[in-house]
Amino acid sequence: MSKIKITLPDGSAREYSKGITAGEIASDIGRKLGEDALIAKVNSKLKDLFTPINEDASLQIITFKDKEGIEVFRHSTAHLLAHAVIELFPDAKPTIGPAVEEGFYYDFGIEHHFTPEDLAKIEHKMKEIADKNYAVERIELDEAEAKRMFRGNKYKIELIEDFHKEKQPISAYTQGNFTDLCRGPHIPRTGMMKAFKLTKTAGAYWKGNPNNDQLQRIYGISFPEKSKLDAHLKLIEEAEKRDHRKLGKELEWFHFFEESPGAPFFYPKGAIIYNLLLEFIKYEYKKRGYQEVVTPLLYEKSLWLTSGHWEHFKENMFILESEGKEYALKPMNCPSHVLIYKSKSRSYKDLPLRIADFAPLHRNELSGVLTGLTRVRKMSQDDAHIFIMHEQIEEEILKVLDFTHYIYNEVFDFEYNVELSTRPEKYMGSLDDWNRAEDALKKALERKKIKYEIKEGDGAFYGPKIDFHIKDAIGRSWQLATIQLDFQLPERFDATYIGADNSKHPVVMIHRALLGSIERFIGILVEHYAGKLPLWLAPVQVRILTVADRFEKYANEIKEKFEKNKTRVEVDARAESIGYKVREAQHQKIPLILTVGEKEEKNNAVAVRTPDNNVYFDIKADDLLEKVSDNIEKKKVKVEI
Amino acid sequence: MSKIKITLPDGSAREYSKGITAGEIASDIGRKLGEDALIAKVNSKLKDLFTPINEDASLQIITFKDKEGIEVFRHSTAHLLAHAVIELFPDAKPTIGPAVEEGFYYDFGIEHHFTPEDLAKIEHKMKEIADKNYAVERIELDEAEAKRMFRGNKYKIELIEDFHKEKQPISAYTQGNFTDLCRGPHIPRTGMMKAFKLTKTAGAYWKGNPNNDQLQRIYGISFPEKSKLDAHLKLIEEAEKRDHRKLGKELEWFHFFEESPGAPFFYPKGAIIYNLLLEFIKYEYKKRGYQEVVTPLLYEKSLWLTSGHWEHFKENMFILESEGKEYALKPMNCPSHVLIYKSKSRSYKDLPLRIADFAPLHRNELSGVLTGLTRVRKMSQDDAHIFIMHEQIEEEILKVLDFTHYIYNEVFDFEYNVELSTRPEKYMGSLDDWNRAEDALKKALERKKIKYEIKEGDGAFYGPKIDFHIKDAIGRSWQLATIQLDFQLPERFDATYIGADNSKHPVVMIHRALLGSIERFIGILVEHYAGKLPLWLAPVQVRILTVADRFEKYANEIKEKFEKNKTRVEVDARAESIGYKVREAQHQKIPLILTVGEKEEKNNAVAVRTPDNNVYFDIKADDLLEKVSDNIEKKKVKVEI
Repeated sequence: MSKIKITLPDGSAREYSKGITAGEIASDIGRKLGEDALIAKVNSKLKDLFTPINEDASLQIITFKDKEGIEVFRHSTAHLLAHAVIELFPDAKPTIGPAVEEGFYYDFGIEHHFTPEDLAKIEHKMKEIADKNYAVERIELDEAEAKRMFRGNKYKIELIEDFHKEKQPISAYTQGNFTDLCRGPHIPRTGMMKAFKLTKTAGAYWKGNPNNDQLQRIYGISFPEKSKLDAHLKLIEEAEKRDHRKLGKELEWFHFFEESPGAPFFYPKGAIIYNLLLEFIKYEYKKRGYQEVVTPLLYEKSLWLTSGHWEHFKENMFILESEGKEYALKPMNCPSHVLIYKSKSRSYKDLPLRIADFAPLHRNELSGVLTGLTRVRKMSQDDAHIFIMHEQIEEEILKVLDFTHYIYNEVFDFEYNVELSTRPEKYMGSLDDWNRAEDALKKALERKKIKYEIKEGDGAFYGPKIDFHIKDAIGRSWQLATIQLDFQLPERFDATYIGADNSKHPVVMIHRALLGSIERFIGILVEHYAGKLPLWLAPVQVRILTVADRFEKYANEIKEKFEKNKTRVEVDARAESIGYKVREAQHQKIPLILTVGEKEEKNNAVAVRTPDNNVYFDIKADDLLEKVSDNIEKKKVKVEI
Repeated sequence: MSKIKITLPDGSAREYSKGITAGEIASDIGRKLGEDALIAKVNSKLKDLFTPINEDASLQIITFKDKEGIEVFRHSTAHLLAHAVIELFPDAKPTIGPAVEEGFYYDFGIEHHFTPEDLAKIEHKMKEIADKNYAVERIELDEAEAKRMFRGNKYKIELIEDFHKEKQPISAYTQGNFTDLCRGPHIPRTGMMKAFKLTKTAGAYWKGNPNNDQLQRIYGISFPEKSKLDAHLKLIEEAEKRDHRKLGKELEWFHFFEESPGAPFFYPKGAIIYNLLLEFIKYEYKKRGYQEVVTPLLYEKSLWLTSGHWEHFKENMFILESEGKEYALKPMNCPSHVLIYKSKSRSYKDLPLRIADFAPLHRNELSGVLTGLTRVRKMSQDDAHIFIMHEQIEEEILKVLDFTHYIYNEVFDFEYNVELSTRPEKYMGSLDDWNRAEDALKKALERKKIKYEIKEGDGAFYGPKIDFHIKDAIGRSWQLATIQLDFQLPERFDATYIGADNSKHPVVMIHRALLGSIERFIGILVEHYAGKLPLWLAPVQVRILTVADRFEKYANEIKEKFEKNKTRVEVDARAESIGYKVREAQHQKIPLILTVGEKEEKNNAVAVRTPDNNVYFDIKADDLLEKVSDNIEKKKVKVEI
């Protein structure tokens, strides 16, 4: 038997007999890899593990750790679902069943509407089939064979005809007595699917077209291990509890109206949070040499032509007409700031020039993708553009990194990951400029001792960038700050400075927003803290509860002291039980719940309940005032009494 | 000769012979009135003074004190101008020459372009003609006569044909050898025009249509007395010096770009002023029980249909489309706040509910009428809507009056006039509600001891209102706050509250903005103070100038102390003369200019130059710090050292 050479991702090569499968090679490399292998990349193409390899090839074994592995695993679970449904509901016509971001689904042509009880039965049947550990096999078919095989299922027949028209190969996958029309690839055995959950049902239209048949969709999620499924279900449950849309409405912080899709209304308490974030950033700006400007929102087409937005971003802009001219609501602040930069001659002595702006931005997102505060049509960013000389990149980036670290790590308690995206194949500017810029970014990251991953070639064509991803309290990752170098926009606008050599040089721009969109950041904060915002950000910081009517005067005395200290405080003197009043204050996520009664009044003290539900008795009012002020001033995340 | 009865404005009646003129009656009433009389209102119609009166009539003598008097006086000066032009330029074809807000103009068909020297000559000729004190006479003509009289002037022929077509009577006015086609009325003698000035020339099109002939326009202004003209010219000169557009650019506070007509860019120093005004208002809001919200800018057509804006305000809104739906950028905040009001059930215990908003508003004004900050397309107001019960009107209006008085009178140094506009002929709501509401407004004004003028019938159909007009430092009047009651909008949106009687009642809304548009208010402030803003609002409050290099360290020590006190301070340590540095600081309207040298350093003191150009020597630095903080905290208009 002739030999072939298999090259592995680490560059090493192994010799095998022609016709060996990727699955066999995985087991040969190691027992664990053999067990974990789901599919393989052969010469960069995804293949079933059982596909024989007949010539020299590069090979990568794909497991559940890889994005492609997760997708194929869940696609196979969709087949398992269809298999079970057919066993239980022989009339059901399987149509399509892909993996999606949150798991997988399968659409069936069937009169019956699946009930929660059905889902339990189907899940049970899936378990039975999985346990039989059927081998999965691939069959290649011509159109006639395929049509014969799927006769009686008009949806599959239509798909077969589509494939034929598009000259695509037709294939099917079989496990036990179930066969599905499918391109593959798939995992090799049903027994590998050890943990799955059907999550919900929904109506859907064949091929997404409301004029077509209505189908019944079943959604599910799957993992190779039960512990991972359990963790996932717990995460979902936790995420639902802290969903910012739910909390925002319950707490009367923000709300959406159908009259303005994707544009939040911040109610008084939400507006307090909103304004506190702006004040916080403005305070930092003063210390860090940023200058705020207030700018228009509507700009004539000519500006967007110069900036390139008309060409590249037009469909995301809201466009209108006035006196025969076209205008767009700005989706970004950069061109406004270039206009300001260019409004006078700039010298190297004026640089860095840091221009900050909180102007509302509008992006014409599809209404279907709008999601609470995290995907909106209207937002304000803590946006700034920094104009610098090329040789100032490292120093200035260092300052921006310092600012970012301060916010994420010192003010909030986010862990974060950093990615540096470098020169793509198509780029503008000189290779030398790029190399120097990338070096400067790396040096700045290293000087600030920030670990980073390099995304080779992932930079924008107009400059390299640094991305920050934060991890929230339940482990979810959110992209936040981007620090983007830009060589192009200054060139488009001919923005220059006069150097020490008395001649003109192109200026370099840094685009940076650290919170990003204030709206989205609030959404993330609400979910991260499950509504229990740090004391300094809480719309109501202190509520004083009276144990009985007669302590209202004392409660109001304490309240006035807090007010003098600029603390946001309320008194609840209603004739309700103290237990009821505490529960209500907790429900409203008020960080400090004070109770006052006989003993407290006598001792000029209060009892304090903190966000972690610790209660401290007989705390002197003046001591508490001082501690609360200190907590607020230092923007502490945990309340320390 | 038969007698007729003439009734005067004070209700008194006099008998005269039939055929007497209004001019004769004016002289009969009093010599001064006879001299000042310009025209007359006979039975409410404007007539020449020399028109005989042949039957009983009401009569009002109009002088330069009346708006109609000023208009006719200036229209007559336009005739005087045309008279002089014809004498000097016999080829010129007079076309039309009306009075306008800022004086009058006359358009001539002529090849020649008038030069400043021409204007001087024409003015001289006008003086000659005026001094001849020609009597002005009116002639009634039929079309044929008129055409004969104005043969050779195609513009007049066209007008005559227009009048004929519209079946309007045709008349002309003659003075000396000059006759002009004109409806009149006019003042009776050229000698009454004692003071005039031709101010500028411009091109214009016949009938304003760019397809027609180009004409030469001459603008002018006139008064019955030289002292009034002088005062006017001085005011114009003073107004030009303090023109906010000029100062805004010179001081780098704000600027406009053609890419965004009518939408100011506030540069860093202007943005400081902008934000200080917002902070000031927000601070007052906290004290006065207002709650700020942050709201969307784009709303679907359905909202504007409900609010009535689609019907009444559509052409002033910027309208755009997304996903097949029409949206408008909001020109006002009211509907947003009604949505918030209606987002939950409201009880009488929740009222008054005061919702404040600084959202940017957009109005699609014609580009031709845009004027600096005072007439813009984009602005933010210190806008609030107060939701109240009908019986809360008086108390709440009193609070709003108090707030307004505090801002205009105590914080800024504006004098103001107040007008109360009452029920118009067409109104909505019950007569009883109107009467009670108007009474409540009057009572509130009287309780606050504010003098007011009643504008009978000038209220909006949806409620009575109170308008504030402030007077600036050079005597110009600006309309600012409006406090508008609204019975209608709540009804359109079915906005109600649950009363103590447990049933639903319509809520009443107050629309109120006290600064009005922040943009416009800044424009007015800049002109009122000629750029020398009160210390608390100045973008740079203190500049420290060194007498020589070696005092830079001391200057910086003082600077740090000011910064600790949150004062906006700069050091000018350049090697320029102290005189030069002082002049530059004054030019930049910096309120406090400190100089430091040998003696100051030794004594831990500074020399202080205040905005009124007083210099105080040897002021202890610590005393000054305290005084400056006090001036800022108390928002003093005059700096007191």
